[in-house]
Amino acid sequence: MRVTVLRLGHRPERDKRITTHVGLVSRAFGAEEMLLTGRDPSIEESLADVVERWGGDFRLKTDVSWKGEVIRWKEAGGKVVHLTMYGSRMQNVVDEIRMHDNILVVVGAEKVPAEMYDLADWNVAVGSQPHSEVAALAVFLDHLMEGQELTKDFDGGLRIIPSPRGKQVVGHRKQDFPDTKD
Amino acid sequence: MRVTVLRLGHRPERDKRITTHVGLVSRAFGAEEMLLTGRDPSIEESLADVVERWGGDFRLKTDVSWKGEVIRWKEAGGKVVHLTMYGSRMQNVVDEIRMHDNILVVVGAEKVPAEMYDLADWNVAVGSQPHSEVAALAVFLDHLMEGQELTKDFDGGLRIIPSPRGKQVVGHRKQDFPDTKD
Repeated sequence: MRVTVLRLGHRPERDKRITTHVGLVSRAFGAEEMLLTGRDPSIEESLADVVERWGGDFRLKTDVSWKGEVIRWKEAGGKVVHLTMYGSRMQNVVDEIRMHDNILVVVGAEKVPAEMYDLADWNVAVGSQPHSEVAALAVFLDHLMEGQELTKDFDGGLRIIPSPRGKQVVGHRKQDFPDTKD
Repeated sequence: MRVTVLRLGHRPERDKRITTHVGLVSRAFGAEEMLLTGRDPSIEESLADVVERWGGDFRLKTDVSWKGEVIRWKEAGGKVVHLTMYGSRMQNVVDEIRMHDNILVVVGAEKVPAEMYDLADWNVAVGSQPHSEVAALAVFLDHLMEGQELTKDFDGGLRIIPSPRGKQVVGHRKQDFPDTKD
Protein backbone atom coordinates (compact mmCIF):
# COMPACT_ATOMS: atom_id res chain seq x y z
CA MET A 1 0.00 0.00 0.00
CA ARG A 2 1.20 3.48 -0.88
CA VAL A 3 0.07 6.36 1.31
CA THR A 4 0.52 10.09 0.72
CA VAL A 5 -0.71 12.78 3.09
CA LEU A 6 -2.10 16.09 1.86
CA ARG A 7 -2.02 18.90 4.43
CA LEU A 8 -4.63 21.49 3.56
CA GLY A 9 -4.84 25.11 4.63
CA HIS A 10 -1.55 25.43 6.47
CA ARG A 11 -1.09 28.94 7.90
CA PRO A 12 2.64 29.56 8.42
CA GLU A 13 2.39 31.86 11.42
CA ARG A 14 -0.11 29.73 13.32
CA ASP A 15 0.25 26.10 12.23
CA LYS A 16 4.01 25.67 12.06
CA ARG A 17 4.38 23.13 14.85
CA ILE A 18 1.11 21.33 14.21
CA THR A 19 1.98 20.87 10.52
CA THR A 20 5.48 19.71 11.48
CA HIS A 21 3.87 17.11 13.74
CA VAL A 22 1.55 16.10 10.86
CA GLY A 23 4.66 15.60 8.70
CA LEU A 24 6.55 13.61 11.36
CA VAL A 25 3.52 11.41 11.99
CA SER A 26 3.10 10.86 8.24
CA ARG A 27 6.68 9.61 8.02
CA ALA A 28 6.71 7.58 11.25
CA PHE A 29 3.38 5.90 10.47
CA GLY A 30 4.38 4.78 6.99
CA ALA A 31 3.36 7.46 4.50
CA GLU A 32 5.84 8.10 1.69
CA GLU A 33 5.21 11.77 1.12
CA MET A 34 3.46 14.85 2.42
CA LEU A 35 1.97 17.44 0.09
CA LEU A 36 1.58 20.93 1.52
CA THR A 37 -0.49 23.81 0.20
CA GLY A 38 1.78 26.83 0.55
CA ARG A 39 5.42 26.95 1.65
CA ASP A 40 7.09 27.10 5.02
CA PRO A 41 10.90 26.86 5.12
CA SER A 42 10.98 25.96 8.82
CA ILE A 43 8.83 22.87 8.21
CA GLU A 44 10.94 21.87 5.22
CA GLU A 45 14.06 22.12 7.39
CA SER A 46 12.59 20.20 10.33
CA LEU A 47 11.46 17.31 8.17
CA ALA A 48 14.67 17.20 6.11
CA ASP A 49 16.64 17.11 9.34
CA VAL A 50 14.67 14.14 10.69
CA VAL A 51 15.05 12.22 7.41
CA GLU A 52 18.78 12.95 7.40
CA ARG A 53 19.27 11.64 10.92
CA TRP A 54 16.63 8.94 11.20
CA GLY A 55 16.68 7.52 7.67
CA GLY A 56 14.22 6.53 4.98
CA ASP A 57 13.20 8.63 2.02
CA PHE A 58 10.13 10.53 3.15
CA ARG A 59 9.52 13.48 0.86
CA LEU A 60 7.81 16.84 1.20
CA LYS A 61 6.28 18.65 -1.78
CA THR A 62 5.24 22.23 -1.11
CA ASP A 63 3.08 24.79 -2.86
CA VAL A 64 0.70 22.26 -4.32
CA SER A 65 -2.85 22.98 -5.45
CA TRP A 66 -4.99 20.81 -3.18
CA LYS A 67 -7.71 20.40 -5.73
CA GLY A 68 -5.27 19.66 -8.53
CA GLU A 69 -3.60 16.95 -6.43
CA VAL A 70 -6.89 15.36 -5.38
CA ILE A 71 -8.18 15.26 -8.94
CA ARG A 72 -4.88 13.95 -10.32
CA TRP A 73 -4.78 11.26 -7.63
CA LYS A 74 -8.27 10.06 -8.51
CA GLU A 75 -7.63 10.15 -12.24
CA ALA A 76 -4.59 7.89 -11.67
CA GLY A 77 -6.88 5.35 -9.96
CA GLY A 78 -6.01 6.22 -6.35
CA LYS A 79 -8.50 6.71 -3.52
CA VAL A 80 -8.97 9.79 -1.34
CA VAL A 81 -9.71 9.73 2.40
CA HIS A 82 -10.60 13.00 4.10
CA LEU A 83 -10.25 12.96 7.88
CA THR A 84 -13.04 14.97 9.55
CA MET A 85 -14.89 14.63 12.82
CA TYR A 86 -18.15 14.71 10.86
CA GLY A 87 -17.37 11.68 8.69
CA SER A 88 -18.23 7.99 8.79
CA ARG A 89 -16.88 6.07 11.76
CA MET A 90 -13.37 4.87 10.98
CA GLN A 91 -14.16 1.44 12.39
CA ASN A 92 -16.88 0.94 9.77
CA VAL A 93 -14.87 1.86 6.69
CA VAL A 94 -11.19 1.13 7.34
CA ASP A 95 -11.33 -2.49 6.13
CA GLU A 96 -12.81 -1.35 2.84
CA ILE A 97 -10.19 1.40 2.45
CA ARG A 98 -7.39 -1.09 3.13
CA MET A 99 -8.34 -3.05 0.01
CA HIS A 100 -6.96 -0.24 -2.16
CA ASP A 101 -3.32 0.30 -3.10
CA ASN A 102 -2.94 4.05 -3.38
CA ILE A 103 -4.42 6.18 -0.63
CA LEU A 104 -4.29 9.96 -0.34
CA VAL A 105 -5.13 11.04 3.21
CA VAL A 106 -6.31 14.65 3.46
CA VAL A 107 -5.80 16.47 6.76
CA GLY A 108 -7.28 19.95 7.08
CA ALA A 109 -6.42 22.90 9.26
CA GLU A 110 -9.02 25.47 10.37
CA LYS A 111 -11.30 25.67 7.34
CA VAL A 112 -11.81 22.95 4.75
CA PRO A 113 -13.63 23.85 1.51
CA ALA A 114 -17.03 22.15 1.22
CA GLU A 115 -15.87 20.74 -2.10
CA MET A 116 -13.39 18.52 -0.29
CA TYR A 117 -16.24 16.57 1.31
CA ASP A 118 -17.62 15.81 -2.15
CA LEU A 119 -14.31 14.95 -3.80
CA ALA A 120 -13.32 12.47 -1.07
CA ASP A 121 -14.08 8.80 -1.61
CA TRP A 122 -14.50 8.58 2.17
CA ASN A 123 -14.94 11.24 4.82
CA VAL A 124 -13.67 9.47 7.91
CA ALA A 125 -14.09 10.36 11.60
CA VAL A 126 -11.63 9.18 14.23
CA GLY A 127 -14.11 9.48 17.07
CA SER A 128 -16.80 12.15 16.87
CA GLN A 129 -15.36 14.68 19.30
CA PRO A 130 -13.12 17.65 18.53
CA HIS A 131 -9.47 16.78 19.13
CA SER A 132 -6.47 17.04 16.80
CA GLU A 133 -5.58 16.41 13.18
CA VAL A 134 -2.23 15.04 14.39
CA ALA A 135 -4.02 12.45 16.53
CA ALA A 136 -6.62 11.65 13.87
CA LEU A 137 -3.90 11.00 11.28
CA ALA A 138 -1.85 8.77 13.61
CA VAL A 139 -4.80 6.68 14.80
CA PHE A 140 -6.16 6.34 11.26
CA LEU A 141 -2.79 5.21 9.84
CA ASP A 142 -2.33 2.81 12.78
CA HIS A 143 -5.70 1.19 12.01
CA LEU A 144 -5.13 1.27 8.26
CA MET A 145 -1.77 -0.52 8.59
CA GLU A 146 -2.94 -2.70 11.47
CA GLY A 147 0.00 -1.75 13.66
CA GLN A 148 2.59 -2.93 11.11
CA GLU A 149 3.94 0.61 10.88
CA LEU A 150 5.04 0.58 14.52
CA THR A 151 7.97 -1.73 13.78
CA LYS A 152 8.86 -0.32 10.36
CA ASP A 153 12.59 0.07 9.63
CA PHE A 154 14.02 3.20 8.05
CA ASP A 155 17.18 2.70 6.00
CA GLY A 156 20.33 4.60 6.80
CA GLY A 157 19.39 6.31 10.05
CA LEU A 158 19.86 6.13 13.76
CA ARG A 159 17.93 3.35 15.38
CA ILE A 160 16.47 3.10 18.88
CA ILE A 161 16.67 -0.16 20.80
CA PRO A 162 13.42 -0.27 22.83
CA SER A 163 14.29 -0.25 26.50
CA PRO A 164 12.38 -0.20 29.81
CA ARG A 165 14.79 2.43 31.22
CA GLY A 166 17.11 4.98 29.66
CA LYS A 167 17.98 5.66 26.03
CA GLN A 168 19.69 3.25 23.68
CA VAL A 169 20.45 4.48 20.19
CA VAL A 170 22.60 2.84 17.54
CA GLY A 171 23.49 3.91 14.03
CA HIS A 172 26.12 4.92 11.59
CA ARG A 173 26.48 8.39 12.93
CA LYS A 174 26.78 8.31 16.67
CA GLN A 175 28.20 11.81 16.69
CA ASP A 176 24.69 12.88 15.79
CA PHE A 177 23.14 11.56 18.97
CA PRO A 178 19.79 13.27 18.70
CA ASP A 179 18.68 16.04 20.92
CA THR A 180 15.09 15.40 19.97
CA LYS A 181 12.54 15.87 22.63
CA ASP A 182 11.89 13.57 25.54
CA MET B 1 -10.27 2.23 34.28
CA ARG B 2 -9.41 5.78 35.32
CA VAL B 3 -6.87 7.68 33.24
CA THR B 4 -5.27 11.03 34.00
CA VAL B 5 -2.74 12.73 31.72
CA LEU B 6 0.20 14.72 33.07
CA ARG B 7 1.69 17.22 30.62
CA LEU B 8 5.26 17.94 31.58
CA GLY B 9 7.42 20.92 30.65
CA HIS B 10 4.84 23.05 28.86
CA ARG B 11 6.36 26.31 27.59
CA PRO B 12 3.55 28.87 27.14
CA GLU B 13 5.04 30.79 24.24
CA ARG B 14 6.02 27.73 22.22
CA ASP B 15 3.76 24.82 23.17
CA LYS B 16 0.35 26.49 23.36
CA ARG B 17 -1.31 24.67 20.48
CA ILE B 18 0.47 21.36 21.00
CA THR B 19 -0.57 21.30 24.67
CA THR B 20 -4.12 22.25 23.70
CA HIS B 21 -4.14 19.27 21.32
CA VAL B 22 -2.76 17.06 24.12
CA GLY B 23 -5.68 18.21 26.30
CA LEU B 24 -8.31 17.67 23.60
CA VAL B 25 -6.94 14.22 22.83
CA SER B 26 -6.93 13.36 26.55
CA ARG B 27 -10.62 14.24 26.77
CA ALA B 28 -11.70 12.68 23.46
CA PHE B 29 -9.82 9.44 24.13
CA GLY B 30 -11.30 8.89 27.56
CA ALA B 31 -9.01 10.49 30.15
CA GLU B 32 -10.80 12.26 33.02
CA GLU B 33 -8.29 14.99 33.74
CA MET B 34 -5.13 16.70 32.54
CA LEU B 35 -2.51 17.97 34.96
CA LEU B 36 -0.29 20.75 33.67
CA THR B 37 2.98 22.00 35.08
CA GLY B 38 2.70 25.79 34.87
CA ARG B 39 -0.27 27.90 33.82
CA ASP B 40 -1.57 29.06 30.47
CA PRO B 41 -4.91 30.90 30.42
CA SER B 42 -5.42 30.34 26.68
CA ILE B 43 -5.27 26.57 27.14
CA GLU B 44 -7.63 26.73 30.12
CA GLU B 45 -10.10 28.71 28.00
CA SER B 46 -9.87 26.42 24.96
CA LEU B 47 -10.48 23.28 27.00
CA ALA B 48 -13.27 24.84 29.10
CA ASP B 49 -14.95 25.97 25.88
CA VAL B 50 -14.87 22.47 24.40
CA VAL B 51 -16.25 20.92 27.59
CA GLU B 52 -19.01 23.55 27.68
CA ARG B 53 -20.09 22.85 24.12
CA TRP B 54 -19.33 19.15 23.70
CA GLY B 55 -20.16 17.87 27.17
CA GLY B 56 -18.67 15.59 29.77
CA ASP B 57 -16.70 16.69 32.80
CA PHE B 58 -13.08 16.67 31.72
CA ARG B 59 -11.00 18.73 34.13
CA LEU B 60 -7.75 20.65 33.89
CA LYS B 61 -5.53 21.23 36.92
CA THR B 62 -2.70 23.71 36.40
CA ASP B 63 0.46 24.65 38.22
CA VAL B 64 1.08 21.17 39.54
CA SER B 65 4.45 19.83 40.66
CA TRP B 66 5.11 16.93 38.27
CA LYS B 67 7.16 15.00 40.77
CA GLY B 68 4.68 15.58 43.57
CA GLU B 69 1.82 14.30 41.39
CA VAL B 70 3.74 11.23 40.24
CA ILE B 71 4.75 10.30 43.77
CA ARG B 72 1.25 10.93 45.14
CA TRP B 73 -0.26 8.82 42.35
CA LYS B 74 2.02 5.90 43.13
CA GLU B 75 1.48 6.16 46.87
CA ALA B 76 -2.29 5.93 46.24
CA GLY B 77 -1.72 2.63 44.40
CA GLY B 78 -1.92 3.99 40.84
CA LYS B 79 0.47 3.16 38.01
CA VAL B 80 2.54 5.58 35.95
CA VAL B 81 3.17 5.29 32.19
CA HIS B 82 5.72 7.64 30.61
CA LEU B 83 5.46 7.93 26.83
CA THR B 84 8.90 8.19 25.24
CA MET B 85 10.31 7.05 21.91
CA TYR B 86 13.08 5.27 23.83
CA GLY B 87 10.75 3.06 25.91
CA SER B 88 9.48 -0.51 25.62
CA ARG B 89 7.37 -1.27 22.59
CA MET B 90 3.76 -0.41 23.37
CA GLN B 91 2.57 -3.68 21.81
CA ASN B 92 4.57 -5.67 24.38
CA VAL B 93 3.34 -3.94 27.53
CA VAL B 94 -0.14 -2.54 26.88
CA ASP B 95 -1.98 -5.72 27.93
CA GLU B 96 -0.16 -5.68 31.26
CA ILE B 97 -0.90 -1.98 31.80
CA ARG B 98 -4.58 -2.53 31.05
CA MET B 99 -4.87 -4.82 34.08
CA HIS B 100 -4.55 -1.80 36.38
CA ASP B 101 -7.35 0.57 37.38
CA ASN B 102 -5.66 3.94 37.81
CA ILE B 103 -3.22 5.04 35.14
CA LEU B 104 -1.30 8.30 35.01
CA VAL B 105 0.03 8.90 31.48
CA VAL B 106 2.98 11.30 31.36
CA VAL B 107 3.58 13.24 28.15
CA GLY B 108 6.71 15.36 27.96
CA ALA B 109 7.59 18.44 25.95
CA GLU B 110 11.17 19.27 24.94
CA LYS B 111 13.16 18.04 27.93
CA VAL B 112 12.09 15.38 30.41
CA PRO B 113 14.09 15.02 33.64
CA ALA B 114 16.01 11.73 33.80
CA GLU B 115 14.24 11.05 37.08
CA MET B 116 10.97 10.60 35.21
CA TYR B 117 12.34 7.48 33.48
CA ASP B 118 13.06 5.96 36.90
CA LEU B 119 9.79 6.95 38.55
CA ALA B 120 7.65 5.51 35.72
CA ASP B 121 6.31 1.99 36.11
CA TRP B 122 6.58 1.73 32.33
CA ASN B 123 8.43 3.85 29.79
CA VAL B 124 6.44 3.16 26.61
CA ALA B 125 7.32 3.84 22.97
CA VAL B 126 4.65 4.28 20.31
CA GLY B 127 6.94 3.31 17.46
CA SER B 128 10.64 4.12 17.75
CA GLN B 129 10.81 7.11 15.45
CA PRO B 130 10.51 10.78 16.36
CA HIS B 131 6.99 12.03 15.77
CA SER B 132 4.56 13.79 18.13
CA GLU B 133 3.43 13.57 21.73
CA VAL B 134 -0.11 14.28 20.51
CA ALA B 135 0.03 11.23 18.24
CA ALA B 136 1.74 9.05 20.83
CA LEU B 137 -0.92 9.85 23.43
CA ALA B 138 -3.81 9.18 21.03
CA VAL B 139 -2.45 5.89 19.73
CA PHE B 140 -1.53 4.72 23.24
CA LEU B 141 -4.98 5.52 24.65
CA ASP B 142 -6.64 3.87 21.63
CA HIS B 143 -4.67 0.66 22.28
CA LEU B 144 -5.16 0.87 26.05
CA MET B 145 -8.94 1.20 25.66
CA GLU B 146 -9.10 -1.16 22.69
CA GLY B 147 -11.05 1.31 20.57
CA GLN B 148 -13.89 1.61 23.11
CA GLU B 149 -13.13 5.31 23.53
CA LEU B 150 -14.03 6.02 19.88
CA THR B 151 -17.74 5.63 20.56
CA LYS B 152 -17.78 7.14 24.06
CA ASP B 153 -20.72 9.46 24.84
CA PHE B 154 -20.26 12.81 26.57
CA ASP B 155 -23.22 13.98 28.65
CA GLY B 156 -24.82 17.31 27.96
CA GLY B 157 -23.07 18.38 24.78
CA LEU B 158 -23.54 18.63 21.07
CA ARG B 159 -23.38 15.31 19.30
CA ILE B 160 -22.24 14.48 15.78
CA ILE B 161 -24.14 11.93 13.70
CA PRO B 162 -21.44 10.17 11.64
CA SER B 163 -22.12 10.82 7.98
CA PRO B 164 -20.45 9.97 4.67
CA ARG B 165 -21.02 13.55 3.40
CA GLY B 166 -21.66 16.86 5.09
CA LYS B 167 -22.06 17.77 8.74
CA GLN B 168 -24.83 16.54 11.02
CA VAL B 169 -24.84 17.85 14.57
CA VAL B 170 -27.58 17.49 17.18
CA GLY B 171 -27.80 18.70 20.74
CA HIS B 172 -29.48 20.87 23.28
CA ARG B 173 -27.88 24.02 22.10
CA LYS B 174 -28.12 24.29 18.36
CA GLN B 175 -27.40 27.99 18.52
CA ASP B 176 -23.87 26.94 19.40
CA PHE B 177 -23.27 25.16 16.14
CA PRO B 178 -19.57 24.73 16.42
CA ASP B 179 -17.08 26.46 14.26
CA THR B 180 -14.39 24.03 15.35
CA LYS B 181 -11.88 22.96 12.82
CA ASP B 182 -12.14 19.82 10.81
